[in-house]
Amino acid sequence: MAFSERVTRLKSSLIREILAAAQRPEVMSFAGGLPAEAMLPQVEWQGMPKSMGQYGMSEGEPELREAIAREARQLGVPCDASQVLIVSGSQQTLDLAAKLFIDPGTKVLLEAPTYLAALQPFQLFGADCIAVPQEADGPQLEALRAQLARKPAFGYLIPTFQNPSAVRYSEAKRDAVAALFDEYGVTLIEDEPYRELVFDGGSATPIVSRLRTASWIYTGTVSKTLLPGLRVGFLIATPDLYPLLLRLKQAADLHTNRVGQWQALQWLGSEQYRTHLAELRDFYRLRRDAMQLALLEHFGELADWQVPQGGLFFWLKLKQPLDTRTLLKPALAQDVAFMPGEPFFVDPDQHHGYLRLNFSHVAPARLGEGLQRLARVIRTAQQAQGSTQSEPAIAG
Amino acid sequence: MAFSERVTRLKSSLIREILAAAQRPEVMSFAGGLPAEAMLPQVEWQGMPKSMGQYGMSEGEPELREAIAREARQLGVPCDASQVLIVSGSQQTLDLAAKLFIDPGTKVLLEAPTYLAALQPFQLFGADCIAVPQEADGPQLEALRAQLARKPAFGYLIPTFQNPSAVRYSEAKRDAVAALFDEYGVTLIEDEPYRELVFDGGSATPIVSRLRTASWIYTGTVSKTLLPGLRVGFLIATPDLYPLLLRLKQAADLHTNRVGQWQALQWLGSEQYRTHLAELRDFYRLRRDAMQLALLEHFGELADWQVPQGGLFFWLKLKQPLDTRTLLKPALAQDVAFMPGEPFFVDPDQHHGYLRLNFSHVAPARLGEGLQRLARVIRTAQQAQGSTQSEPAIAG
Repeated sequence: MAFSERVTRLKSSLIREILAAAQRPEVMSFAGGLPAEAMLPQVEWQGMPKSMGQYGMSEGEPELREAIAREARQLGVPCDASQVLIVSGSQQTLDLAAKLFIDPGTKVLLEAPTYLAALQPFQLFGADCIAVPQEADGPQLEALRAQLARKPAFGYLIPTFQNPSAVRYSEAKRDAVAALFDEYGVTLIEDEPYRELVFDGGSATPIVSRLRTASWIYTGTVSKTLLPGLRVGFLIATPDLYPLLLRLKQAADLHTNRVGQWQALQWLGSEQYRTHLAELRDFYRLRRDAMQLALLEHFGELADWQVPQGGLFFWLKLKQPLDTRTLLKPALAQDVAFMPGEPFFVDPDQHHGYLRLNFSHVAPARLGEGLQRLARVIRTAQQAQGSTQSEPAIAG
Repeated sequence: MAFSERVTRLKSSLIREILAAAQRPEVMSFAGGLPAEAMLPQVEWQGMPKSMGQYGMSEGEPELREAIAREARQLGVPCDASQVLIVSGSQQTLDLAAKLFIDPGTKVLLEAPTYLAALQPFQLFGADCIAVPQEADGPQLEALRAQLARKPAFGYLIPTFQNPSAVRYSEAKRDAVAALFDEYGVTLIEDEPYRELVFDGGSATPIVSRLRTASWIYTGTVSKTLLPGLRVGFLIATPDLYPLLLRLKQAADLHTNRVGQWQALQWLGSEQYRTHLAELRDFYRLRRDAMQLALLEHFGELADWQVPQGGLFFWLKLKQPLDTRTLLKPALAQDVAFMPGEPFFVDPDQHHGYLRLNFSHVAPARLGEGLQRLARVIRTAQQAQGSTQSEPAIAG
C-alpha cells in the first residue's frame, strides 16, 4: 500500500484514545470542552422550508451569510455577506486554510499553548509550526516580532478566552499584534469560538478589525452557544482569499448541511438568542465560580492559575512540574479525567506541568470530590518523582 | 501572499460559474444533478433527542453505522459497523481519499468520462490522473489492465449508473474488474450514489464484494434518495484504511452533523423508505421515458445515446462533434442549460461532442420545447463550424 507522504505525519492521538476508552458514566470528566447538556437549547424544526432538503450553495445560505456579516460588523469587523463562507464547523476553516497555505516546511505561527485540534491539520499538511509564548494579556510581543520576521504563511491566534489557556488579549496587545501583522504583511487567522461566553463583562474588538493592510480570515461557530451537533461554523475572509477558500470548500464537501444552517438562522440576532446567551453566561459563571472555590481548596498549594473571564477552561500550572500525560491513567483509575497540557504545545516535551480543566461539564456538587481525587493523584506522582530523583544512583 | 503549491492546481470551474450566473427561473435546466423538488420527502423532526445537538463521535452515530453496515451486507459487501465512517456527503470521501493517497505525481486511475467533482480534489492534491475508456457495459478491460500495471495508488470507479455516462457495469465486467484489482493489488474506491435509482430492474452486487485481497473503500450517500441538504454520506473501508480515514475525518471537521444523521437513521431500512424509493423510481422512470421520447424527436439525427437504466442522466454523443463548451452561452441565451461533456474527462480537448442532460428536473410538459431549442443551438453551431471549415483559407 502506497500512502501519501502526508500520512507519515498523521499522528494518532493517544490521549484522545485513552479518554474515549474511559467514557464510563462513573468518570467525572474535566477533560472535554463540551457545552453543558442542560444548556443545550430546545430547538424548533417546525416551519423549515422543504427546500432546505435540496442541494444548496457552496457559499452557504444567503440569509445566514447576511446575518453573520451583520453581527461581525457590529463587532467592528469590516465585511459584507459576500465575504462570508459557511463551513462545517470552524474546524473546517483550519482544513481549508491548511490547504490554501501549507506545503511541507511552510512556516505557520501559533500561540504556545494553542488549540490542540488546529495542530492536527496544520501538521498533517507539513507545517513547520513556530510558536510565540502566551502571557496573561496576550502574546509576548518581542517573540511575536521575531517569529513574524521569519515570514510565516499565516499566524493563527485565538485572542478571546483561548482554548486551553483562557487568555484574553488586552486592548493594548490587540493593537500591537495588528500593527505587527501589518508591518510584516502576514495573514492573520483569528479564531473566536468563545467570544460570547464572557462572564465578567468587557469586550474587545477582534484583531482583524484593527488591521490596515494584512489579509485575514476571521472564524467562528455556533457550537459553543447554540448546538455543536449542527456543525455550522463560518469564516469571513478578505477578498483576495475568499474565492480560493470557496473553491476549496466545494472540493471538500460541496456545501454545509442546510438544516443546521436554517436552525442557526432562526437564532442569530434574535431576542430568543440574546436571552439564551445571557442564561448561558449566568450558568457558566456559576460553574466557573464553583470551580474556582474548589480549586482554591484542593489545588492552592499544588498549582497556579488565572481565573478565566470567559470560555470553558481553567489552565493550571503545577508548582512542581511533571509530565502530566503520565497522570492520566492513574487519574482514570480514580474515575477522574482531565486534559494533559503537553499536546497543546508544538514541542510537548518542553512544556511539562500544565493541566486543562473544563468547568462546564461536572456538576458543582461533585466538583470537590473530583478535584480532591485529582490532587491526590498528582501528589502521589510528585512524591514518587521526588523520591526517584532524591535516590542515589545505584548503577551507572 | 505565499499560497501553497497546491493552489496553482485549484482550477476555477468556468462552466460552474456560467451556470450559477444563469439561475433565472425562465431557464430550463438540463444541467444539474438535483433530485426533483417534488420528490423530496416530507421529513419529521419530532422525537429527535436533544442530545443530537451535542458534539458527537468522529465515526458517526453508532446506530446509523449499524444500519448502513446491515444494508451493505445485504448488497453482498462483507463488513461490520466498525468499518463505517459517516461523512459530510460522499464528496468528503473523495477529499479524505485524496489526503490519504495523493502526493504530487501520484497516479490515480479513473474512468473516461468520470465524475467531474472527483477530478477536483484529486487534481488539487496533484494526482496524475490516468483514464480507462468506458464502454456500454463497463471499462475497456485491456486498457484497464494496462493502466493498473502502471501501479496507480487507487482506482476510482462508479460502476452503477455512472455520472455522467449512465453506464452500469455488466456482471462479467464486475468480475473481471475485481480480478484485475486483486491481481495488481490496487485499492478500489467504488462510488455508488445512484444504486437505488434503478428503473428497469436488475441488480448487480458491488465490485468490492467480489474482491479477495485488494483494499477498498465503498462510498454512498442519502443525497439522491432522501435529502441532499442533510449532507450525510458514508464510507466503508477495509480495516487497513479505516483508522487513517478516521483521523483524517477528525482533522477535517470533527464529525458529521448529527441532526442529518438522526434524520437518515429514521429512514434507512424502514418500510417508509422502501415506499419512498419505489415512488422515486416510478417518478424518475416516467421522466426518463418522457426524455427518451423527446430526444428521439429532436436529437435523433443529431446524436447517439444509450437509454439510461438508472441514475439521473442521458449522455449524448453528437454525430458531428464540436466543443460543447462553446454551446453553453448560446443555449443560455435561449434559456436552456445543459452540461458540456469536456470537463468530465482528464483530457477535455480530446473528447469533444458529448453532452450530459439531466432528466429529473425539467417537467415533461416543457421537455420538448427545451430540447428543440437546444437542438437548434447545436445545428446553428455545426453549420457555422461546417461553413468555417469548408471556406477556403484566405490568409496563411
